[in-house]
Amino acid sequence: MVDQELLGTLRQELRRGSVVLVCLLALRDPNYGYALVGILESAGVETDANTLYPLLRRLERQGLVSSEWITDDPRPRKYYRTTDTGIEIARLLLDDWSAISKSIEQFKPGGRG
Amino acid sequence: MVDQELLGTLRQELRRGSVVLVCLLALRDPNYGYALVGILESAGVETDANTLYPLLRRLERQGLVSSEWITDDPRPRKYYRTTDTGIEIARLLLDDWSAISKSIEQFKPGGRG
Repeated sequence: MVDQELLGTLRQELRRGSVVLVCLLALRDPNYGYALVGILESAGVETDANTLYPLLRRLERQGLVSSEWITDDPRPRKYYRTTDTGIEIARLLLDDWSAISKSIEQFKPGGRG
Repeated sequence: MVDQELLGTLRQELRRGSVVLVCLLALRDPNYGYALVGILESAGVETDANTLYPLLRRLERQGLVSSEWITDDPRPRKYYRTTDTGIEIARLLLDDWSAISKSIEQFKPGGRG
């Protein structure tokens, strides 16, 4: 019997670090928050506006994304874009991700381990 | 110019959730903490005893691993083993991991995205 609260905490922990990486990669194409929620969901990463919006603001404070209001559309929207620093950080995080991925593949049931 | 402190924080965030998963998978074969540090390192996951020992104690409190002192060797060691609950949790976390992995593959430079 799996403790759902514990599972929720572990899932959140697992996602927290990796969603940053996904956002930095995805926002090389500028987009607005709500669209990004949809993009992540269609890529299989469950998230919601309440999680993502504060994350985008944090990434902006950290200089990893920048934002710009686009007012051409009937509804003005704040578009985020990964900065050069953000792209460099994403590249370094991808190396870590690859190492972790390989070890998970190695240890998982039916893996090489 | 990448802020090394920020990079360190992001790398730690990225690893924190995934190291739990690697430990749960690796400890289906019972082992002691220090050996596990070596196993993770040789699998490319940088970690150290100061991080891993508290994590193992936390996983034990959460019922995801159990421990047993083995005193057959000249030096008694505490062996950890993933519990049935831990294996079930690892299986569920692997599903999340796969989804995140796919989206990272999709968005990464040179990926399908």
